[in-house]
Amino acid sequence: MNLDPAVPVRWLAQFIGATLVGAEEQMATGLNEIHKVRNGDISFVDFEKYYEKCLHSAATIIIINKAVECPKGKTLLIHADPFSAYVKLIKHFRGFEPAMQMISPSATIGEGTHLQPNVFVGNHVQIGKNCLIHPNVTIYDHCIIGDNVIIHAGSVIGADAFYFKRRKECAVQYDKLESCGRVIIEDWVEIGACCTIDKGVSGDTILGKGTKLDNHIHIGHGAVIGKNCLFAAQVGIGGKAIIEDEVILWGQVGVSKDLTIGKGAVVYAQSGVPASIPGGKIYFGSPVEDAKTKMKELNWIKRIPELWQRMLEEK
Amino acid sequence: MNLDPAVPVRWLAQFIGATLVGAEEQMATGLNEIHKVRNGDISFVDFEKYYEKCLHSAATIIIINKAVECPKGKTLLIHADPFSAYVKLIKHFRGFEPAMQMISPSATIGEGTHLQPNVFVGNHVQIGKNCLIHPNVTIYDHCIIGDNVIIHAGSVIGADAFYFKRRKECAVQYDKLESCGRVIIEDWVEIGACCTIDKGVSGDTILGKGTKLDNHIHIGHGAVIGKNCLFAAQVGIGGKAIIEDEVILWGQVGVSKDLTIGKGAVVYAQSGVPASIPGGKIYFGSPVEDAKTKMKELNWIKRIPELWQRMLEEK
Amino acid sequence: MNLDPAVPVRWLAQFIGATLVGAEEQMATGLNEIHKVRNGDISFVDFEKYYEKCLHSAATIIIINKAVECPKGKTLLIHADPFSAYVKLIKHFRGFEPAMQMISPSATIGEGTHLQPNVFVGNHVQIGKNCLIHPNVTIYDHCIIGDNVIIHAGSVIGADAFYFKRRKECAVQYDKLESCGRVIIEDWVEIGACCTIDKGVSGDTILGKGTKLDNHIHIGHGAVIGKNCLFAAQVGIGGKAIIEDEVILWGQVGVSKDLTIGKGAVVYAQSGVPASIPGGKIYFGSPVEDAKTKMKELNWIKRIPELWQRMLEEK
Repeated sequence: MNLDPAVPVRWLAQFIGATLVGAEEQMATGLNEIHKVRNGDISFVDFEKYYEKCLHSAATIIIINKAVECPKGKTLLIHADPFSAYVKLIKHFRGFEPAMQMISPSATIGEGTHLQPNVFVGNHVQIGKNCLIHPNVTIYDHCIIGDNVIIHAGSVIGADAFYFKRRKECAVQYDKLESCGRVIIEDWVEIGACCTIDKGVSGDTILGKGTKLDNHIHIGHGAVIGKNCLFAAQVGIGGKAIIEDEVILWGQVGVSKDLTIGKGAVVYAQSGVPASIPGGKIYFGSPVEDAKTKMKELNWIKRIPELWQRMLEEK
Repeated sequence: MNLDPAVPVRWLAQFIGATLVGAEEQMATGLNEIHKVRNGDISFVDFEKYYEKCLHSAATIIIINKAVECPKGKTLLIHADPFSAYVKLIKHFRGFEPAMQMISPSATIGEGTHLQPNVFVGNHVQIGKNCLIHPNVTIYDHCIIGDNVIIHAGSVIGADAFYFKRRKECAVQYDKLESCGRVIIEDWVEIGACCTIDKGVSGDTILGKGTKLDNHIHIGHGAVIGKNCLFAAQVGIGGKAIIEDEVILWGQVGVSKDLTIGKGAVVYAQSGVPASIPGGKIYFGSPVEDAKTKMKELNWIKRIPELWQRMLEEK
Repeated sequence: MNLDPAVPVRWLAQFIGATLVGAEEQMATGLNEIHKVRNGDISFVDFEKYYEKCLHSAATIIIINKAVECPKGKTLLIHADPFSAYVKLIKHFRGFEPAMQMISPSATIGEGTHLQPNVFVGNHVQIGKNCLIHPNVTIYDHCIIGDNVIIHAGSVIGADAFYFKRRKECAVQYDKLESCGRVIIEDWVEIGACCTIDKGVSGDTILGKGTKLDNHIHIGHGAVIGKNCLFAAQVGIGGKAIIEDEVILWGQVGVSKDLTIGKGAVVYAQSGVPASIPGGKIYFGSPVEDAKTKMKELNWIKRIPELWQRMLEEK
């Protein structure tokens, strides 16, 4: 997320109770976890094995739990628990704002857009022109919806990222990373009934122009779905997955997090995609393989008894 | 869908801007896509390979993109883009009617039926006697629900068919086929929480008497589910599938579109049904096979290392 | 469920029209199906093969369809249709109470808890402190929610168990077992969007402290989920499953009913768990196996053509 107006690092150090090391006059212009950092951003790191990655990322201000050497031009904020310090900042800059009514007065809704009864529209939501939102849809704060979008009943846009830090020593092991990203739905997208599109942890979850989702589809936090994709019912997409344009996923396909499905790939029903796959091909299986290869394997399995029989006869 | 009162073909030709060929005095009594056509219906065809099928179907009035010879007794409406012309007709005869309140004044609700708070009941919906509809259920326009039906919270009855025409040349590739079918839920059906039953494209999606659905179930457009079926949670049924009476589907089963599952079939959890299967049998696997055959295959796979070993020893 | 105040067996016999055999002065203190019975409970049995199990269970009062010998200290209620008699009792002691408003006046809601607009809170629901319940959530009667719980939009807590008795002779084959159990959600649980947690048939469905659920998750009736579990999106858990502490289930995993997953088990995406599995291990496949074993099997399958080729060469 962006910080506007920008925030001085001295204020940040004081607010989270950190020791400031390095450039003291910087201004933070954004707040992002390591996967999404840009210049001017605050980020955090608490595992020694990720120190190098974070210190040499685009992030300008780094909350870190060790007094390492500060890279030139950056600011370190030394804090015993960077995760909690980072969450404190998110809660400050994008804290939960209770809703007082079904449609927030801070939301903007374009001309020609029709909301059926009982649509919840959160604070700062922007909805474009000529959209149709069916009953019992929930749109969380800060989501952005383009023009000519259709959302069917019961769908939930912008729920929290499913992202927790494990604290081994605690009775409650999982510590919630508050999410401050948004969902952006481009023009001409159609979302079926009972779908869930989670917001990004700090970046945006995006559904590209003209993409169509059937019912019961889950899109994880920060996933970026291309243009003109077609997902059949009950597909699930993990966090930060990148699905390029014109990908077709048949029913109940599961896609893991942090991977890329290339442009125009087609994945048959119930397949599972555990890692990146190139575009322009047809896939099947869990884990997925080239569909033809998988079909051949299924046939080979049927021939095992024959193989066994022939071997016995060879004796 | 039916057209009542019937509509003269001359009016149709003028309304969509088509050239009328053949019988000029016909009256259209219905509007259906090719899978559901009856006598008196308007239908459309835009792919040359389906011309014959459509021209010799029960449809009386055919919107077509080529001046072919008109079969006796039928009327052709020649139009450069039959799909758009057909959608224009659907929008005219069953256009979206915005809801003004949670329960439409045009809905009828039978004696003894109880609606919990915040149930949305669309225009022209009919609900029978002694039903119980739990909170946050959405029932779209024109759905018909029998007697003694229970629908659990969050379910969505009658959302649009997931049906698009691909336009290769366009930035927005998928063109929506407006659906004008209905959902018909017969007596004694129970529908779990967060289920979605889509309406038919032009015909009806039907849940037969006494059928019980667990939670998170998806029933695609125009599917016809028989009587006394039992579907466990997270089952998905593709469009226009026919599931005969007394079929049992265990959790997370996926069923493809345009197929038939025979009476009394049992399909084990997580199986995938890609094509028609006969009734009275037990199935397992993705793609499904006879359950016992599949179990044997799983055992044979475990014996491959042994087979390999024995072959090496034979040398 | 408990009966408070306790109910004399003579009254029970009269109310359901049963013949009383055995101890005539007992008081019933609970009503439970056989899987959950405790001392003082009423239970029922209608299949001869379960007679012994029920007669020697902790149940004190047994509705049974045959005049068998009454175990010492127990009471039999002889009735031609024990299932219907039991359902009649449930309807009497925990009948459906129509809601008059979105938040029942009999619900209690703790300090610091915020309900977003349009949350349905049923009768006798208890919600603890500092919870956040997002829009369009439905909480059925009698559910109990601890402190610091987050429930995302569209989720449904406490819908009926999916539990039917088959009546072969009837046009409507499936007879509903009314459920009178509850859902208990312990402190620090987070439930994603569009999840469904069904109530127990007569006992409680429990989500243990600190457990986190992603979106579209189904938890069947009477399942008991341990502490600090992590379930990814679209996981489904069957009725009465026991999932011990710190179990991690990846996306789209399906778990059958009446089994136990041991503490700390990890099950990879799309796996199916048909029977109990020990804790502390990693699993994969449908049906699940040890993950490494399964991976090896997948590799062996790929070597079948090589095996075949070598066998041919041996000839």
